Amino acid sequence: MATYTKQEALDYHIGGKIGTFVKTPFNSAKDLTLAYSPGVAEPCKEIEKDKNLAFKYTNKKNLVAVISDGSAVLGLGDIGAIASKPVMEGKAVLFKKFAGLDAFDIEINESDPDKIVEICKAISPTFGGINLEDIKAPKCFYIEKRLKEETDIAIMHDDQHGTAIITTAGLINALKISKKRVEDLKVVVNGSGAAGIACAKMYKNLGVKNIIMLDSKGVINDKRDDLTEEKREFIIKTDISTLSQALDGADMFLGLSKGGVLTKEMVKTMAKDPIIFALANPIPEIYPYEVREVRDDAMIGTGRSDYLNQVNNVLGFPYIFRGALDVGAKFITEDMKMAAAIALADLARLEVSDEVKKIVGKDDLEFGKDYFIPNPFDKRVLFAVAPAVAKAAFEGGVARVDKFDEEEYKKELKKLNL
Amino acid sequence: MATYTKQEALDYHIGGKIGTFVKTPFNSAKDLTLAYSPGVAEPCKEIEKDKNLAFKYTNKKNLVAVISDGSAVLGLGDIGAIASKPVMEGKAVLFKKFAGLDAFDIEINESDPDKIVEICKAISPTFGGINLEDIKAPKCFYIEKRLKEETDIAIMHDDQHGTAIITTAGLINALKISKKRVEDLKVVVNGSGAAGIACAKMYKNLGVKNIIMLDSKGVINDKRDDLTEEKREFIIKTDISTLSQALDGADMFLGLSKGGVLTKEMVKTMAKDPIIFALANPIPEIYPYEVREVRDDAMIGTGRSDYLNQVNNVLGFPYIFRGALDVGAKFITEDMKMAAAIALADLARLEVSDEVKKIVGKDDLEFGKDYFIPNPFDKRVLFAVAPAVAKAAFEGGVARVDKFDEEEYKKELKKLNL
Repeated sequence: MATYTKQEALDYHIGGKIGTFVKTPFNSAKDLTLAYSPGVAEPCKEIEKDKNLAFKYTNKKNLVAVISDGSAVLGLGDIGAIASKPVMEGKAVLFKKFAGLDAFDIEINESDPDKIVEICKAISPTFGGINLEDIKAPKCFYIEKRLKEETDIAIMHDDQHGTAIITTAGLINALKISKKRVEDLKVVVNGSGAAGIACAKMYKNLGVKNIIMLDSKGVINDKRDDLTEEKREFIIKTDISTLSQALDGADMFLGLSKGGVLTKEMVKTMAKDPIIFALANPIPEIYPYEVREVRDDAMIGTGRSDYLNQVNNVLGFPYIFRGALDVGAKFITEDMKMAAAIALADLARLEVSDEVKKIVGKDDLEFGKDYFIPNPFDKRVLFAVAPAVAKAAFEGGVARVDKFDEEEYKKELKKLNL
Repeated sequence: MATYTKQEALDYHIGGKIGTFVKTPFNSAKDLTLAYSPGVAEPCKEIEKDKNLAFKYTNKKNLVAVISDGSAVLGLGDIGAIASKPVMEGKAVLFKKFAGLDAFDIEINESDPDKIVEICKAISPTFGGINLEDIKAPKCFYIEKRLKEETDIAIMHDDQHGTAIITTAGLINALKISKKRVEDLKVVVNGSGAAGIACAKMYKNLGVKNIIMLDSKGVINDKRDDLTEEKREFIIKTDISTLSQALDGADMFLGLSKGGVLTKEMVKTMAKDPIIFALANPIPEIYPYEVREVRDDAMIGTGRSDYLNQVNNVLGFPYIFRGALDVGAKFITEDMKMAAAIALADLARLEVSDEVKKIVGKDDLEFGKDYFIPNPFDKRVLFAVAPAVAKAAFEGGVARVDKFDEEEYKKELKKLNL
């Protein structure tokens, strides 16, 4: 991980990170009459007649809102709307830099989920998509569900689906490496917040049958009477209650919990060719080198940039929204998310680019147990994920465009010049 | 007025007018750790401790939201949120080009004034100011009032105050030219929507005693029983009911009504050195050449760019928000608006710049009956209005900064390089 001082981090933020610029020519009195009064009346009248023309005559088609109430900010918890603003601006930076999307942040000083829904819904005409961010579970589930039902633009709560998509990509490749069948897997998910629940759901969609979920009180089993609706979906009939019991013979560990909770002893009891995603940040549930001390056959991912197979959401959200907005998607469907995961998995199996080899400092890097998730700085991610998502949207009937040509689209993406 | 075709106006808008850009360096893995995780936690923690640090560590200090429900769009009426988006993006363009402020538009698909207040209030932590735009009267009064009371950032409904400030600047100069005393004036305001009411209030603040307001049903007098709260403030005891009766002997006409309603016959009956603001757009209540046919002594302003003394809101809002945000103003006060009007009036009395002479095509242009409101393209407007507003905010105790030096501030404004 690149090191920095607190002062450097603060200085970097002075004045904020996102600004606006004027996309159209504005050099004459005539430009003023076109950009504003009276010329602006023409596109207004067209959009009044046909709302879909907002995708043509405004910035909506390329615009994402990053919205948070600041109730579950990475590693900081419920710090409130205004204190979460640097994170949301940062997310807007990533949208721009990785996918060329215009994005701005909106912090909502409101905790009632119904009111958050009402606000997002009311302002939704402004945008092509809304990236919900750092909203506490379980209200994040409710908010996202209602917004998907009640708006006509692309909505995604990235804390849930980002991690789900990227670990699913890793899981797809780990299955190829270990030659296991998805329906035979035993998966342990430690942490049942927004991301844990979404990951477990996506693994089920992939075909995983046997999932043991744990929250801070232990295994989610049929003895528990303290479970939210989302957790109840994962109740299993069992007497086991601890992580070490759950891991015995498990093929996969997904940690979205706390640094250090996975011990070498536990790892030893896992099945052959285990997959270990230790995503607590900055201190993972177990360090990759610790796993290696006891298991040569493990496949390991973390949330940290100083290890290979970083589960970094930036591999997902910029390109998912890019693909979704480029076809005017009315929803982000399960198929679109799965298409993103498959595209990421496919990309990791291609020859590693020289650029990535240089970034990670490994000349001989190739697909295998040490490298099965693409690097966030791999320039090919855009061209892999965005077209896959756009295609899935088009084929799933949620796109606004009436034709879609994948090769033509890739040419358009090249023009973004990222 | 610059001419353009409908197709030109539509083509100009393809893809929209406002985008975002990244203000900070973003070229390395280290930049990623500073802009996002984990470095971003540092400013978040600081802001959590002291909310005012959001003005330092985020873009809030330079950021204005242009918010509308699309219920009263210039010349188009109640076209709804999404159809108003080109106008609001256009306003954001003007904020950027004239004052270097970052601004983005938010369209609210909601008509209930209480809900609009709730939404604006909830998202207000994001911004340094909110420019309310094209919201129908009388709800615009209620929404602005409540937001001023219930948020801690600069709020202004430009349709009201923009026109008020600029016509007040014109009025101040007209008084100097005609050597009349403000307390002796008889002013007729034809049109009692958002702008009409705000203008009349500001003229009262300036010292005008005798104001006759008219709405579509005639003079607002004590015989009327169909008046909103805002209109009732201007009830006068009188038997007159028509515009021509009202104008007899009047010193000033302000038209925010309909093209052609002011006749040459009516103009003839006005007092010596009359002030005529015919602001209906694109066809004014009377054309300046028509006034000239019957009155050599009149001072005339319109809303059109092809005549001198254009009452163009762009003379106000960019610089008012610039000044307000630069001192972290918690409100926009009456004093700040009056300071803006005085600064505009003062500027018109300076020697006309060569640039402006060139734009209007008059080499001998000087302050007087034909020129008493600055040209919107006069580069000095920024340096006149923003410091006046900032100073009034500071002296009025609504600024967040603890010192203010006007000369230093002007140097800072130069650095914007507009």
